[in-house]
Amino acid sequence: MNSFGRFFRVHIFGESHGNGVGVCIDGCPEGIPLSADDFVSDLVRRKSGARGTTPRIENDMPEILSGIYNGYTTGAPVSILFRNENTRSSDYERFTAMPRPGHADFSGRIRYNGFNDPRGGGHFSGRVTLGIVSAGVIAKKTVSPVNIEAVLVKVGGSTDIQSKIEEVLSENDSAGGLIHCRISGLRAGIGNPFFDSVESVLAHILFSIPGVKGVEFGAGFAAAEMKGSEHNDPFISPTGETLTNNAGGINGGISNGNDIKINIAVKPTSSIGREQHTFNFETRKMDVLKAEGRHDACIALRIPVIVEAAAAIALADLMSAKK
Amino acid sequence: MNSFGRFFRVHIFGESHGNGVGVCIDGCPEGIPLSADDFVSDLVRRKSGARGTTPRIENDMPEILSGIYNGYTTGAPVSILFRNENTRSSDYERFTAMPRPGHADFSGRIRYNGFNDPRGGGHFSGRVTLGIVSAGVIAKKTVSPVNIEAVLVKVGGSTDIQSKIEEVLSENDSAGGLIHCRISGLRAGIGNPFFDSVESVLAHILFSIPGVKGVEFGAGFAAAEMKGSEHNDPFISPTGETLTNNAGGINGGISNGNDIKINIAVKPTSSIGREQHTFNFETRKMDVLKAEGRHDACIALRIPVIVEAAAAIALADLMSAKK
Amino acid sequence: MNSFGRFFRVHIFGESHGNGVGVCIDGCPEGIPLSADDFVSDLVRRKSGARGTTPRIENDMPEILSGIYNGYTTGAPVSILFRNENTRSSDYERFTAMPRPGHADFSGRIRYNGFNDPRGGGHFSGRVTLGIVSAGVIAKKTVSPVNIEAVLVKVGGSTDIQSKIEEVLSENDSAGGLIHCRISGLRAGIGNPFFDSVESVLAHILFSIPGVKGVEFGAGFAAAEMKGSEHNDPFISPTGETLTNNAGGINGGISNGNDIKINIAVKPTSSIGREQHTFNFETRKMDVLKAEGRHDACIALRIPVIVEAAAAIALADLMSAKK
Amino acid sequence: MNSFGRFFRVHIFGESHGNGVGVCIDGCPEGIPLSADDFVSDLVRRKSGARGTTPRIENDMPEILSGIYNGYTTGAPVSILFRNENTRSSDYERFTAMPRPGHADFSGRIRYNGFNDPRGGGHFSGRVTLGIVSAGVIAKKTVSPVNIEAVLVKVGGSTDIQSKIEEVLSENDSAGGLIHCRISGLRAGIGNPFFDSVESVLAHILFSIPGVKGVEFGAGFAAAEMKGSEHNDPFISPTGETLTNNAGGINGGISNGNDIKINIAVKPTSSIGREQHTFNFETRKMDVLKAEGRHDACIALRIPVIVEAAAAIALADLMSAKK
Repeated sequence: MNSFGRFFRVHIFGESHGNGVGVCIDGCPEGIPLSADDFVSDLVRRKSGARGTTPRIENDMPEILSGIYNGYTTGAPVSILFRNENTRSSDYERFTAMPRPGHADFSGRIRYNGFNDPRGGGHFSGRVTLGIVSAGVIAKKTVSPVNIEAVLVKVGGSTDIQSKIEEVLSENDSAGGLIHCRISGLRAGIGNPFFDSVESVLAHILFSIPGVKGVEFGAGFAAAEMKGSEHNDPFISPTGETLTNNAGGINGGISNGNDIKINIAVKPTSSIGREQHTFNFETRKMDVLKAEGRHDACIALRIPVIVEAAAAIALADLMSAKK
Repeated sequence: MNSFGRFFRVHIFGESHGNGVGVCIDGCPEGIPLSADDFVSDLVRRKSGARGTTPRIENDMPEILSGIYNGYTTGAPVSILFRNENTRSSDYERFTAMPRPGHADFSGRIRYNGFNDPRGGGHFSGRVTLGIVSAGVIAKKTVSPVNIEAVLVKVGGSTDIQSKIEEVLSENDSAGGLIHCRISGLRAGIGNPFFDSVESVLAHILFSIPGVKGVEFGAGFAAAEMKGSEHNDPFISPTGETLTNNAGGINGGISNGNDIKINIAVKPTSSIGREQHTFNFETRKMDVLKAEGRHDACIALRIPVIVEAAAAIALADLMSAKK
Repeated sequence: MNSFGRFFRVHIFGESHGNGVGVCIDGCPEGIPLSADDFVSDLVRRKSGARGTTPRIENDMPEILSGIYNGYTTGAPVSILFRNENTRSSDYERFTAMPRPGHADFSGRIRYNGFNDPRGGGHFSGRVTLGIVSAGVIAKKTVSPVNIEAVLVKVGGSTDIQSKIEEVLSENDSAGGLIHCRISGLRAGIGNPFFDSVESVLAHILFSIPGVKGVEFGAGFAAAEMKGSEHNDPFISPTGETLTNNAGGINGGISNGNDIKINIAVKPTSSIGREQHTFNFETRKMDVLKAEGRHDACIALRIPVIVEAAAAIALADLMSAKK
Repeated sequence: MNSFGRFFRVHIFGESHGNGVGVCIDGCPEGIPLSADDFVSDLVRRKSGARGTTPRIENDMPEILSGIYNGYTTGAPVSILFRNENTRSSDYERFTAMPRPGHADFSGRIRYNGFNDPRGGGHFSGRVTLGIVSAGVIAKKTVSPVNIEAVLVKVGGSTDIQSKIEEVLSENDSAGGLIHCRISGLRAGIGNPFFDSVESVLAHILFSIPGVKGVEFGAGFAAAEMKGSEHNDPFISPTGETLTNNAGGINGGISNGNDIKINIAVKPTSSIGREQHTFNFETRKMDVLKAEGRHDACIALRIPVIVEAAAAIALADLMSAKK
């Protein structure tokens, strides 16, 4: 299912080397001021070009196909299209025979019985996150004044991010990264017990971002090593402010008015320039693979804005349920 | 929303101190042999009674209300009821004035404008997981021969689990725990790119379990510190077997045929016997709270079977989508 | 799927001759006063006992299992159970070999590969509508002050309903009926263009009622024979009041503030005492069937309250979407 | 919600005078041969140009944005865009002050607080059905060999359709129409009891088509006037063939293997050239309205292909649930 949300509903589509990628946002409230300019800032943050990101640079100009009239959302679906332009499909053909370790080449082919578009990862491409970022731009407006901010805090385990990037570039390798996301200004009482807990809904969409392999809230995995007397956050004010925030702003699946704190683990980019020993499904022997496409040395560099968008979409949906 | 799943759909209901808790499972295939006896083993694993669990012991006898005929599921909804018997509601009344740190007392009251049932946590109670475990029993049958096994590997950071339990019991405190879940026998090709990735769907339901604050797949948070050359799992056989399993059996959101590996962080039980300094919303001053109800010193002791059930439900749903 | 609704969600379960039937209502707002007494009036209207209805009479006492505390809904799922008591299962066994014309005996067996419960129609039984009526009682409260009223206006084509009932009783036959439903007090602006039009959502649930074979809004089928100059409803006041109401209160799928008018066609009860020539799937020859179970001569007599409940559920859902 | 379906999911978007209209189809199986040519035949049937249809003629060339690779569906979302070209927006501006009787001008403005795009009906336009027809082309392929055929059988109550069209054209009026749809080749066992009965799902999407005000299955409203002995369809063969087909091929919400028969009532086009007396919301007095835009004298002429598409989408969804 390429849809997320029950109220604020996001439908994504597209492939890396097809005509384009895009998004259709349904359930977006009417009357929100919106123009193509509103997308620039977040799209630039997602864009490649910086040291450590892929040399494939797309214009990423959004075309709003529907849902806007006289500068405001109409309440009808907002659909946005990004054309693909800078594609070099020949890079990818041989990955059918020799699926890249860490990639969806193998699992995707089985999932779709070989009919999936293999060019540039097809529908598995990170390029499809353009739709998520675009939906996030609108979602951020609907959840205002809630503020969502995600930052890359470590690359390859190091806080000296620049050095680590240079290191893996010099090695034709890649690195993972750790992202921290803080949501402030969310009022208490949002979310649900059990299946639509704030954690469930946020984790659902965060794990949809390609490369995310871990999500924790508040103290997260450290909580597993704590005692109750350490972990419990005492209330200290009539508004529900707590002294500590080990719960990450969520009790019983429901926001308590304190900041939501999330850590997100991003694995290293699977495509690396170094040789990798892996199975050749044609010759049925082990073989050596060297990926020569254009890739990011650290995809985590481009993910904070996607994390923000994902969180905004999840909150837009959760908050619609409790107007 | 107290529902999970699109195909194999689980609806839970009930409160800790009301008439009972239960579950309605819709979309369960017909023809699965099922009797009340099938629930015993998992319900016993969930049950309290062991050292470190609450002294409130319920019979936990499932009554199958519908959906079974002549020992087989009929394809109609299977609904199961557990009566509440051993309730002592007077324990909980004062938590309205003085919400317990770490509990849903505060956030839940705001969420439901004070109409929620506060007795024993009401619908926020861990007792509602009886429905999840019951649905899991059926889900395990539908995903067979896929095998799901969850074990508690650490309590309070220690692998000497028994000692740590004694330590926190002696301190009137509680401890968190780390659970590992392994899913084997799942064929490649299950799951979807993006919003319904295997990670998304599993994390969604795992974070629905009260107390879960972190979920990671394969190398998880460690992946954020790795290089691509370390993290990538080379294929080594024509069936897609990999040499390492840092991906936790999932590439691009889709199973690759290797074991799914999940770590789940459970926070310490919020209710502790020790005094806690927290805000009194009636006197509007800081005050001292001492929880005297019957609680688990380490709720993580009882959670592995719930993790298994949650994973089974998620897989039953994902596998239905790709028959 | 035994669920209806995106916001106000109704899940039904149960079989005619199993332990019971019931309903779980999720997404019901908190703070609605509710007790078992509130169900009496509508359950009595649905009940059999009147001339032309089945001699199987059940107590139909609702047991509220969850979701109520101190006389108010809590916001957690409200689940309600009706025990089956007055069952005589031997009546139904032979319908496997010789499926009753007009019944789900044949289609249901194929649908569920023979695992469905055949006793009293199993999950296909009209008894399962107890859950719909119960959910309707709550839905009516949530949509208040909207008023929903359904009446049986014709039986077997005649407005002299009593005479027609006697006629078919004397013939060991059954009769269909026409029900009119009027919804007043619904404000303009409810509903959506296209897939969730007021007509779509209402028709969806109305066609879920066993026996309903036709639904029309406003002028309905007569509209197909009209000209625009006749059919168009001129506005006559600043509140949107119209001179005529051929649209049945709905323009472009959205309520316009005038009464919603619906006609519902109910087919005659399939089970009749008269002999019927039909195929015997065991002997593989035509044969004579005589249904001796306890049945309604005109099921339409009992359906108005179900129509009201269905309409209330649909409106509760539509109105939640546009608070 | 602009989405339909749980498995085969159709998301529509667009406005009459905006950039375009389109559709995103998710859950479409991989491996279905598909090219732009496949859409021609059904799009031509939907197109205007014939006597009695609007003089606004669009090229209606579909651009497939995603989901196709090497001539086959990939399993990823298929999205299709139709650009708007022949728009004359000045026709529509005054309908804000003086909403057209029978149109969504009034109800739509309230629904969207005045932010909806009024040009050409905006998102309420019949032009949005291009997306439904396109999705229907794909749905028809997925349900093959099931055959769906809809025909206009009456206009304004007359089977002499051509004469009736000339009559209303000469009067500057419009006419309603009756459409019959027959689905053959659908195997028994598709559908569900209650909420997702074949009737419920089909009626839901059929009532989404602008102008549809009545839907009946089999004998439909005539069934309300029949006796059981007349209405019951006796089985006559081991495959479940019935002598008559008053049930329209559906028993208990489930297909029985006989043809599905549906009648659909379409109201007359609301926009007529004749003067209409209606309320002026600016002057707050009754006034005279004359619609001068380009409209269809009988929209029912163009609806059979939309009915087929809608039925195909519903069946694609229902059949996916029971592979």
